[in-house]
Amino acid sequence: MQNVSALGAFFQPNSVAVVGASSDPRKLGHTVLKNLISMGYAGKIFPINPRENSILDLRCYPSLLDVPEPVEICALIVAADRTLQVAAEMAERKKRYNDILGAICMSAGFAELPAGEARQRELVDILRSASIRLIGPNCLGIIDTGSGFNTNFDISTYAKGGLSILSQSGAFGNSFLLWAREMRLVGLSKYASIGNMADVTMAELLRFLKDDASTRVIGVYLEGLSDPEKFFDAAREVTPVKPIVMLKAGRSAQGAVAARYHTGSIAGADAVYDGAFKQAGILRARTVAEFCDTMRAFERQPVPDGGRVCIVTHMGGPGTICVDEISTIPDLELARLSPEIRDALKSVCPPMANIGHPDGYVDLTGAHTEKLYSRVLNIILREKNADLFLQLIGPSVYLDQKQMAEEIACAYEAQPVKKPFLNAVTFGNYAREIRQRLEDAGILTVEHPDTLARIAGNMAAYGKFRRKAVTRTKADKNATRKDAQTKKATPKSGLIRGV
Amino acid sequence: MQNVSALGAFFQPNSVAVVGASSDPRKLGHTVLKNLISMGYAGKIFPINPRENSILDLRCYPSLLDVPEPVEICALIVAADRTLQVAAEMAERKKRYNDILGAICMSAGFAELPAGEARQRELVDILRSASIRLIGPNCLGIIDTGSGFNTNFDISTYAKGGLSILSQSGAFGNSFLLWAREMRLVGLSKYASIGNMADVTMAELLRFLKDDASTRVIGVYLEGLSDPEKFFDAAREVTPVKPIVMLKAGRSAQGAVAARYHTGSIAGADAVYDGAFKQAGILRARTVAEFCDTMRAFERQPVPDGGRVCIVTHMGGPGTICVDEISTIPDLELARLSPEIRDALKSVCPPMANIGHPDGYVDLTGAHTEKLYSRVLNIILREKNADLFLQLIGPSVYLDQKQMAEEIACAYEAQPVKKPFLNAVTFGNYAREIRQRLEDAGILTVEHPDTLARIAGNMAAYGKFRRKAVTRTKADKNATRKDAQTKKATPKSGLIRGV
Repeated sequence: MQNVSALGAFFQPNSVAVVGASSDPRKLGHTVLKNLISMGYAGKIFPINPRENSILDLRCYPSLLDVPEPVEICALIVAADRTLQVAAEMAERKKRYNDILGAICMSAGFAELPAGEARQRELVDILRSASIRLIGPNCLGIIDTGSGFNTNFDISTYAKGGLSILSQSGAFGNSFLLWAREMRLVGLSKYASIGNMADVTMAELLRFLKDDASTRVIGVYLEGLSDPEKFFDAAREVTPVKPIVMLKAGRSAQGAVAARYHTGSIAGADAVYDGAFKQAGILRARTVAEFCDTMRAFERQPVPDGGRVCIVTHMGGPGTICVDEISTIPDLELARLSPEIRDALKSVCPPMANIGHPDGYVDLTGAHTEKLYSRVLNIILREKNADLFLQLIGPSVYLDQKQMAEEIACAYEAQPVKKPFLNAVTFGNYAREIRQRLEDAGILTVEHPDTLARIAGNMAAYGKFRRKAVTRTKADKNATRKDAQTKKATPKSGLIRGV
Repeated sequence: MQNVSALGAFFQPNSVAVVGASSDPRKLGHTVLKNLISMGYAGKIFPINPRENSILDLRCYPSLLDVPEPVEICALIVAADRTLQVAAEMAERKKRYNDILGAICMSAGFAELPAGEARQRELVDILRSASIRLIGPNCLGIIDTGSGFNTNFDISTYAKGGLSILSQSGAFGNSFLLWAREMRLVGLSKYASIGNMADVTMAELLRFLKDDASTRVIGVYLEGLSDPEKFFDAAREVTPVKPIVMLKAGRSAQGAVAARYHTGSIAGADAVYDGAFKQAGILRARTVAEFCDTMRAFERQPVPDGGRVCIVTHMGGPGTICVDEISTIPDLELARLSPEIRDALKSVCPPMANIGHPDGYVDLTGAHTEKLYSRVLNIILREKNADLFLQLIGPSVYLDQKQMAEEIACAYEAQPVKKPFLNAVTFGNYAREIRQRLEDAGILTVEHPDTLARIAGNMAAYGKFRRKAVTRTKADKNATRKDAQTKKATPKSGLIRGV
């Protein structure tokens, strides 16, 4: 048996017992088992149900205590009033075999209801006294596309990638992932739907994801925290390494009541959270759409080295909207086209095109063609004065969608150094073919010109934060080294300082 | 020949000449003709092209002067440098036959370019001196689903409905319409892509749409106005009758430059516009998504009588986000559930459900079923203390999408009095079936919980504005009546007052 930490075991367990497994396809206990198999989990699975002998070709055991091999994680899909008995069995089993590391309690009926608070306390007490960690209750549990471990009843497969999500709302996390799956808009590393967070905290999970090699960006849906200090301590360790994108609900007094009855969370004063997010380098999204697209941007694209933006489009209206939005974002500015790039653009564009009004902005107007996009991109993507490239496109009867997408994707792929390249592809599903080809080439696509600017702004803001953090860390290290040298020279004062 | 005003003729002409018609399917002059036919235009069509005898089975004429029947509208799809000659032919023809009422100039290369300003002035001069009105140049022209008149090269058919759009950006107007067409998310009355607005103004079109029986709501994409006063005079006449939803670009200095090179517009100080929009009762959208969904909301749903909101969901996270957003919107408040509604909800919901925390909010939690939604809606849609109903749904493996949509649509259709009922349907295309059924039943669906609140807020804000406007009008009428009576009694003082 591989040696794993409790937190690691929640994502890559060697074995799992599904307590409440069912052979009835209409029941959660069936779907969870089915999705665990279809996600490709290679560990051992032990369905637990006293009324079945085998489910989905897996041998079924009457109780946790009957499983003859080590059990690392228990996934609970039983009625709330049965969970305490199961917890007692887990504790008993751990005493006998010293195997169980964690429980994922998907059942609802705990601190989100006034009547369930005592039950949640008792559940935590039983498991803590047995040194068993708990995710949930009132959640959809874990997905890890690397190990194929999966307790989510609505998601049966997912493309691997660099996004990891921590969500207090399973419905919200699932909404995003199922939406993005349709067009392969994001790749997933890990997803923890953690509901009431009775034991394992966001802070612990953040630290775990910081060191997780396959996680490039962390998305967090948060309603409230019982221990904000620990959360922000952890976040401050994570953000210099990878971005955290945040959607914080329970902002208002009434929203806080809804959150209280949803996951038992105490939402806290929003302005305090807001300030703390900024200090910790956490990117707080203003809207749900911005949250989704910002997470995807970091999953797809590199962090920019600055906030200077070039824009290419043939659609003057959407282009103007995008320029407007950029003007409202402190971390962005339009790039100054260098003379050689400007001249090169002029040499390939028709006279009708608007090159550089305002500076950094190129509108190909009605004169655009698939080939012209390719020529323009091959020039402008080499602009040294720009850190991000934004493009606004939409197909028309005059464009061959496939060729247009191919020209854009190839121009991007041909660049030796990849800077962020973000696209707004309008015309909705009508533009599906273009959008799909660009996303498959690792280019971000969003739906609206203003969203495009907001996402670029979030990327630039994070880039700026990280550069500062790195500089600070270097300065700190230098200071420490100097300090150490000073200590060496005057050991006594060093001792005194240490008091 | 039916007698029509010039403005009316732009939408319902008895005949149109397409100058620059082409038999080459790759050319604009071909697609425009094809789309005019496919939209179902029943008037006479005269293609003009000296090198063709017939295009798409229509007899082609060498020049405008050769058409042997009356020509009401000329659609120009020729190179910019040929437009002045065509304009001269139009003037000449009008002198001979007194028939042409208007020109739609789709060609670009006018005031949006410094070199084209003189050309635009000359075009306007020639047409004005012949009393021919002009839409454009640099535009996609007109669609009227009622008459089937259509000069748009990208839109060949559209469902009839109550939305009319005025847009300075053809790409933007088309983006919205093509996106919405895919899932029949809106019905269209009229669409004017008016580009540089060299002659016919937004103000004139607004007044025209005010009296247009098939227009329920007017959407405007605006970059700048040459005569803002006339625009706001017209808007003030329209908004007490039907809502105007606005997306104003060129907000920033740099956006103004982009707009200047896009449609030759002078954008003007944004704060001034913002205040003027508010005063005139125009709803200004903050984002592109909000603009699109707000137009659709008014097209689909009645104007609310107040801002009291009930929310139904089974998704605690999205529900909380929606409640948060409502708290930020001055025109909305959560409704107070009346005791009989609250009791009735309790009698059909499982104990796990959250009924009224906060007040007006119902979270069915994991215990939801298709039937439960139907039961709950049949109760809550009768709540007298609420003016709008919001619902947040998303399908899962446990819900039969078809049945779920059917239950919701039927519960709505069964209400004798229809108040606004707006839905957020998450899970993207995964939820397509639900979304389509609800939209087909006239129920608005949007994608995100925060958008849902914003749209409801815009509806409530307009309702409030209109109630005030009606009260004011009544008061004015009473005052006028009183005034008239006073005049009657004391004619002299009345005369003095009139000085």
